[in-house]
Amino acid sequence: MANPFFNNNGPFKISNILKLLKLDSKKDINDIDIFDIKDLLSAKTNEITFFHSKKYKDHASTSKASFCITTNSLKNYLPKSCKPIIVDNVLVSVSKVSAKFYPTSINDDFDNTVQSIDETKFKEIVKYGKNVLIGSNVSISDDCYIGHNSIIKKNVSIGNNCSIGSNTIIRNTIIKDNVRILDNCTIGKHGFGFFPSNDINLRYPHIGAVIIENNCEIGCGSTIDRGSMSNTTIGKNTYLDNQIHIAHNVKIGENTIIAGQVGIAGSSIIGNNVKIGGQAGISGHLKVGNNVEIAGGSGVIKNIPDNSKVMGYPAKNIREFLRENKWYINQQ
Amino acid sequence: MANPFFNNNGPFKISNILKLLKLDSKKDINDIDIFDIKDLLSAKTNEITFFHSKKYKDHASTSKASFCITTNSLKNYLPKSCKPIIVDNVLVSVSKVSAKFYPTSINDDFDNTVQSIDETKFKEIVKYGKNVLIGSNVSISDDCYIGHNSIIKKNVSIGNNCSIGSNTIIRNTIIKDNVRILDNCTIGKHGFGFFPSNDINLRYPHIGAVIIENNCEIGCGSTIDRGSMSNTTIGKNTYLDNQIHIAHNVKIGENTIIAGQVGIAGSSIIGNNVKIGGQAGISGHLKVGNNVEIAGGSGVIKNIPDNSKVMGYPAKNIREFLRENKWYINQQ
Amino acid sequence: MANPFFNNNGPFKISNILKLLKLDSKKDINDIDIFDIKDLLSAKTNEITFFHSKKYKDHASTSKASFCITTNSLKNYLPKSCKPIIVDNVLVSVSKVSAKFYPTSINDDFDNTVQSIDETKFKEIVKYGKNVLIGSNVSISDDCYIGHNSIIKKNVSIGNNCSIGSNTIIRNTIIKDNVRILDNCTIGKHGFGFFPSNDINLRYPHIGAVIIENNCEIGCGSTIDRGSMSNTTIGKNTYLDNQIHIAHNVKIGENTIIAGQVGIAGSSIIGNNVKIGGQAGISGHLKVGNNVEIAGGSGVIKNIPDNSKVMGYPAKNIREFLRENKWYINQQ
Repeated sequence: MANPFFNNNGPFKISNILKLLKLDSKKDINDIDIFDIKDLLSAKTNEITFFHSKKYKDHASTSKASFCITTNSLKNYLPKSCKPIIVDNVLVSVSKVSAKFYPTSINDDFDNTVQSIDETKFKEIVKYGKNVLIGSNVSISDDCYIGHNSIIKKNVSIGNNCSIGSNTIIRNTIIKDNVRILDNCTIGKHGFGFFPSNDINLRYPHIGAVIIENNCEIGCGSTIDRGSMSNTTIGKNTYLDNQIHIAHNVKIGENTIIAGQVGIAGSSIIGNNVKIGGQAGISGHLKVGNNVEIAGGSGVIKNIPDNSKVMGYPAKNIREFLRENKWYINQQ
Repeated sequence: MANPFFNNNGPFKISNILKLLKLDSKKDINDIDIFDIKDLLSAKTNEITFFHSKKYKDHASTSKASFCITTNSLKNYLPKSCKPIIVDNVLVSVSKVSAKFYPTSINDDFDNTVQSIDETKFKEIVKYGKNVLIGSNVSISDDCYIGHNSIIKKNVSIGNNCSIGSNTIIRNTIIKDNVRILDNCTIGKHGFGFFPSNDINLRYPHIGAVIIENNCEIGCGSTIDRGSMSNTTIGKNTYLDNQIHIAHNVKIGENTIIAGQVGIAGSSIIGNNVKIGGQAGISGHLKVGNNVEIAGGSGVIKNIPDNSKVMGYPAKNIREFLRENKWYINQQ
Repeated sequence: MANPFFNNNGPFKISNILKLLKLDSKKDINDIDIFDIKDLLSAKTNEITFFHSKKYKDHASTSKASFCITTNSLKNYLPKSCKPIIVDNVLVSVSKVSAKFYPTSINDDFDNTVQSIDETKFKEIVKYGKNVLIGSNVSISDDCYIGHNSIIKKNVSIGNNCSIGSNTIIRNTIIKDNVRILDNCTIGKHGFGFFPSNDINLRYPHIGAVIIENNCEIGCGSTIDRGSMSNTTIGKNTYLDNQIHIAHNVKIGENTIIAGQVGIAGSSIIGNNVKIGGQAGISGHLKVGNNVEIAGGSGVIKNIPDNSKVMGYPAKNIREFLRENKWYINQQ
């Protein structure tokens, strides 16, 4: 599937990509066109992928990509159809290559395509407040409200019967039906993903989107960042309270309830019917199962299995936590 | 007292209310007009109330309401003058009935009554910035400032000598004299109160207001939600730092100081002269006494008596907490 | 150096200052002009300083100020050239005197000097969005972007190649080159510094600025308060994620990375190459060394030496914390 939001500047010759990485083309390489950069599972023939950690070795061994940016010690996991491109730092190289394919996905300077909604086709079909701005590549379905001073920047799709609050900024986001996004939110900007480098960090491209499924509510002052190589998703009928931060690539399930000031770090996956109390924090790259309850203020630093109740920092079984703290129900 | 902000669509015949709850009218019920729905203490004759937990049995036994939504196991606490309406889920039924009386209190779509302050009577009496919008049912006293891009939505009263910052949104709020509300705040939207329901949650009406007493300061990026059946109140000369979240129905006393990023969950009551350190969290439905000090980062999960100093998560006596952590003053 | 942003209303005769503090002028005092109020280290001849805690006795003993607001028990640390002014509460007196010199530094009512950028000289040199407002005493260098609805209030200097997001408010701030400030930020307002006083607190003047060095990025919804008697500074190539709060007088070093929802309380000093995980909090007046790693969710309440890794609340050595929590790597 083509990226819905970021224009792919490819194809590029593989020799061109090797040059970008300051590598020599080997003579025996056929200088084919490379059409896209994707992760190990998604990449196909005539596309390039990357492989930087042994924990993805199963995905690597079945990758359909024609080329793979990787290291000398990992290259032997790749199938013969996928030629390794050996580099010192895989992720820095991926950053450079994806920046070449998707140059507009790196920084989020203000969107200069916006115009007053009064000057757009949405004038007739949307109920809107004062000073509403709409960018290019925006679609809005029936029975929607957009509040005062809100900015629907480019690459946004809004379904039926949605309500966007005031002073809210949305970009690179797909909003399904019957969603309410309250005031002062910022949704769809790039995540906090970059390569630290002395004096001047190197920004990682973010070519993912934010997807908000049917019937969700997003509280005031919340931020939801778009994904880097995948999407950030909020499942059906999930409700977020005020001042919540959802980092890039996070996936949240259905019917989940998240109280005020919670933060979820990058790439974590939260299940269905999860309840997260106020100010809890969830570290990155974790998996929280279905029907989990996380007490307010907890700090989750490991995976949580289905149907668990956890509390504390580090978050552990709630009975264990309370016993260790000599905390009895009759104290409450 | 009539609700100052939300229009009461009543009265409704009791038979009409029973039908809404899919209950049959008993033949012996006099089909009187019901004028309002209120809590156990406030409801009067010809009004309906609700009773869902045994801990309110004393209030129930003296209620002056004509009808009470309750359960079979609680109905016998009610006085004879108050007829029980037996339902499976009291709060869901209350939600439906209060939505019937106050249909505009459920969602907070943008306020389409606003107009530029230049077109209002306030043009002459307020010092205001660019792009200020004012809704219906707003009053503003003398010597007030309203900053750029701020939106005073409907149902707001502002006293003398107040300063509202820029990019701030206020609705359903009574602000007394000499109050400063800084930039980027959202005050008076509905709270995070709803009934979880698979696929589509049921929103709880919020017919309360936010009340901010004299001499308060509210920091940048803070959110204060209005109450559901009662008000959210900030007492005299209480100061809130930046990025604070105050949930619905919270009551904060006088001369209290709350540092940055603190969150107070729904219906908790905070006393006078309380000091709360940065990032502390207070669970819902708790009571924090007068002259209490809560250390930064603490998680309060039980009531705190007057004159206590607490720290930790769960927050406990500060000496006990530091001793358990083998923490001595000379370490600091 | 003259204060770049706040107009100094001095000089004032020392007799005039004593009168403000309700003190009698001693007959033997030469009624000289006092040109400024500064801290012990910065103050020079014909300036006034203050000394309120024994821990600054070394600075006091070499102060070049002509007068010093202090207490009876501290006065003997001062050199003979610096005449003590004895008061009951040093900081309240300092507040009064600095308010006299810098009356515009106390409250942050909206800036009435702003005008549409279309009406300024920046129209030609800045790429800007809709509804951008610019105050007095603003400079902007080449190749800058300013997003929709953003307000550059008075006393702001922006270097080359900077990008300011949308709905962001900046005042009293010096931004160097190649800085990106994202959406919905509030930068440069006064800090949460005041003297608690029953019924009506006394606001402390904030005559400092915010300084943001080259190559920094500030995430959405962040707040950075300006200093009271010194500046708040963010070092070169330091990156802040979303919803971060940096209080007044904080100094952050270079190449530091701070994840979402972190809060740093007033006057703390953070080193170079520091990594701070999401939702961590750092108490006021602390020193965090270089190359420190602070785990997400930690609460730092004492100084942290260089090259340490800490975790927990109170934050301690990470190995010790995990061992005490019976937490092993294989659990993760």
